[in-house]
Formats: sequence, structure tokens, C-alpha cells
Amino acid sequence: MNNYKITIEYDGTCYCGWQRQKNAVSIQQAIEQKLKKILSEKIRLTGFSRTDSGVHAAGQVANFYTKNTLKSSKIQHALNAHLPYDIRITGIKKMRLDFNAQKDAKTKIYRYSILNRKQNSPFCAKYALFYPSALNINKMRAASKILTGKHDFLSFKGAKGITKTSVRTVKQIKVSKRNCMIDIDIEATGFLYNMARIMVGTLIEVGRGKISPSYVKEILKFRNRKKAGPTAPAKGLTLLKVKY
Amino acid sequence: MNNYKITIEYDGTCYCGWQRQKNAVSIQQAIEQKLKKILSEKIRLTGFSRTDSGVHAAGQVANFYTKNTLKSSKIQHALNAHLPYDIRITGIKKMRLDFNAQKDAKTKIYRYSILNRKQNSPFCAKYALFYPSALNINKMRAASKILTGKHDFLSFKGAKGITKTSVRTVKQIKVSKRNCMIDIDIEATGFLYNMARIMVGTLIEVGRGKISPSYVKEILKFRNRKKAGPTAPAKGLTLLKVKY
Repeated sequence: MNNYKITIEYDGTCYCGWQRQKNAVSIQQAIEQKLKKILSEKIRLTGFSRTDSGVHAAGQVANFYTKNTLKSSKIQHALNAHLPYDIRITGIKKMRLDFNAQKDAKTKIYRYSILNRKQNSPFCAKYALFYPSALNINKMRAASKILTGKHDFLSFKGAKGITKTSVRTVKQIKVSKRNCMIDIDIEATGFLYNMARIMVGTLIEVGRGKISPSYVKEILKFRNRKKAGPTAPAKGLTLLKVKY
Repeated sequence: MNNYKITIEYDGTCYCGWQRQKNAVSIQQAIEQKLKKILSEKIRLTGFSRTDSGVHAAGQVANFYTKNTLKSSKIQHALNAHLPYDIRITGIKKMRLDFNAQKDAKTKIYRYSILNRKQNSPFCAKYALFYPSALNINKMRAASKILTGKHDFLSFKGAKGITKTSVRTVKQIKVSKRNCMIDIDIEATGFLYNMARIMVGTLIEVGRGKISPSYVKEILKFRNRKKAGPTAPAKGLTLLKVKY
């Protein structure tokens, strides 16, 4: 038996997200179907993150087991030849048998992109939130510092998610601006359901001056989803990297 | 009478280029049709550059005359509200009556993007040439230096173009690499038909080691299109900026 780790880049626009669903095409299903054809075997992928419908990935990671002895480079080549252009396998590596893409991840980095100018752009309309009003980057950075560290993020958890604890550790939040594009990179050991998007929605509220950076401390204390900002749209979010 | 200068960003993928054509949708036609509705007047745009089918623009410039006294910001807003998402008006300015977007341009900058890695990317497949083999950036830079300056670029002129002289002045060529993306920025006072794309096709021949950087000097001397490299595909080219 072989255990392969694959790294995947995808434009999530046309998919119902990573995870298999009835009556909708998922990234997982698209890759599993092609692997079945290539390896003549039913393959089940363990994906690192169940990215939501419309969320993109530059470095999603998954692993799968196969009895097939086809060389890893051949599997990668065959996958890229058969998959639609919006899904690319950017890496493949044979791992020890107990490697698990989900459980072995140390931290993950999500990037949220905001196009902050008066008009939307044909080139990034699918990959960034279009936000034409002024945003104060310094205030957003100040609020990001409050969200960094080990906290109970219950106020930043979507309704669907079920978890034992809502305590998570955010290692770093970087808010950068290049021309009109604001990128918010959030690195954490774990994310609650919709946590990254609710954090971004809250940082936008700070940036536009609706709440003060220091109020973010109160939001954490409330442990109440209603106190945080709105959930930012899926299309601006990209799973950038998983660190092992 | 008012003379307006507009700056336009577009994804050229679905258009036959800038210029009006029979039986195909051009950027010019798309904007003129909307202007006619907004200003209740037949409008003719003078575009700076007749970008080819599939070529993109971040800073195309055009001007038009109108008797209508609608405020420029209103015209811009209305255009962006009615145009498809792949064309955006990023600026509008009332100019002196004799301003001409074509004749008054001092220099223009084209960018050619090459994705230089083993797999294509879902995010830039439409905006960059996918080139999976190794390219030597230093050699490409050396060749770029030879192409910079005032030269007879007849070897770099496509068959279709008719011009009095094939002498042009290339002010600067910058070859930069960020992660896997190579950007070639060419600033010139004027470009012959397909000149930017043939220059890039030739620089790629240099980068992959098929010809030496110094041979580019010979190509210039030959004054023969057949001696230069192939015409790089349209989709990698973007009209970045027009300077007045």
C-alpha cells in the first residue's frame, strides 16, 4: 500500500466546495473520479480543509492510499491531463503510511483579498471582495493584534460548525496593501466554521470606522456570534498554505 | 462640445480586440453602444491602441466628444453600471478640446506575463503564457538590453502592419520574476504590429537557450521577420499604461 500526499490549487467559483455532496460537484469528487480512472481503483481522499462553496485554494493538501505502483510523477501528470483547468495538482509526494493530511497539519494560512478602489476589476472580480469605500489599514492592523493569540473565538463561529471547544490559537494576522489590493493573511492552528470570514467581516467594520479596534476585545468576551461583523463573501478567501 | 478622456481596464478574452469589426464584439463597440444610450448621442471613441483579439488592458485610454453636459463622474458611473463586468472604466477626465488619445501619447507600457512552473494555474491561465520549461532570466535581461534604444525593428513586425518606417524607440525593458511569474514590461514611444509579442517570443528563445543574447543584435540587422522568434500568444499581453 502507498500513501500519497497531493497539493492542489483550485478556483472554487464553480464548485460546491471541497467536500463530496449529493447533487453538486465538489473538488474532492472531481479528483477522486479521475484517480479512479488512472489507478483502476476506488480512491478516497482525506482533504486537509473542507473549504466552502466558492472558496479557492493555492495550497490545499490531501492524502490517499493506493495499491497501484504507478510512479507519483505519472499520477500527477495524468491527473493534470484529465482534470478541468480550474483544478491543478501542483505537487505529489509518497509519505509514510500513517501520514494524514488533516490530523498532521500544524498550522494553516488563509488569505482574504479585498479590492479597495472605486471600480471592480475584470481580473480579480472572482477572487476578491470589491469594497469601494475607504478602509483604515492601521485600525485594521490594531484590531488584528487583538485577535492574535489563544482566545475563545465563539463570537467568530458560524452556526453550522460543531466543535468541542471554541478556543483556537491565531499565530499571526498580516494586513498588507499593494496598490488597491488589501490582503489579510491569517495563520492559525485551527479555524472554527466560517471563522476566517467572520474575522475579515469584523476587520472591515473596524476599517470603515463602524467599530473601534479596541471593541474587538469586547466581541471576543461576548462569546456571541451576533456581536461580531458579518461573514465576508466566500470568493475573497483562499486557502494559501498548510504547514506540517 | 466636451472632450472626455477615459481610462479602461478589460479582460480581452471574449473580445475581438479594441477596434470595431463586423460580426464580432470589440471593446470599442461595447463602450460606444453604452455611451450612445447614456448620452443620447452617437459617440465615436478614439482609442490609444488597437489591442489585438485576446489582449488585455489595465490602462487603455480613449477620448470622445459629446454635446451632452452630464457630469463626468455620472458618465463613468453609468458606464460601469451598464458595461459587462469584464470592462471597467477606471477614470474619466474632461480635457482640452484638441486632446487626442492616440496622437498625444508619449510612451506606452505593455506587460507580457509568463507562468514558469510545471503546472498551469487556475488563477492566471487566461492572463499569462504557461511555459513549463526552464528560462534563464539573466540571458533574457541581456537580450532585453540589446533591444532597448532606437532601432529598426522590421524583424519584429507582424505581416499585417503597414507603416512608413519600422524605426522605433524602446525606452526600457524590465524582466522581473516573482515566485513563478515572469513579467516583461516594455516601454516604447511606439510599437509596430505584433512587435511586443514577437520581442517576447524572441526573449523566450533566448531564455530557453535556443539562441544567444548577442544573436539578438544580428536579428535586428537582418530586418527579416523570419529571423526573430515566434509571436507569443495574445493572452499573456496587457496594455499596462499610456503616458501623456
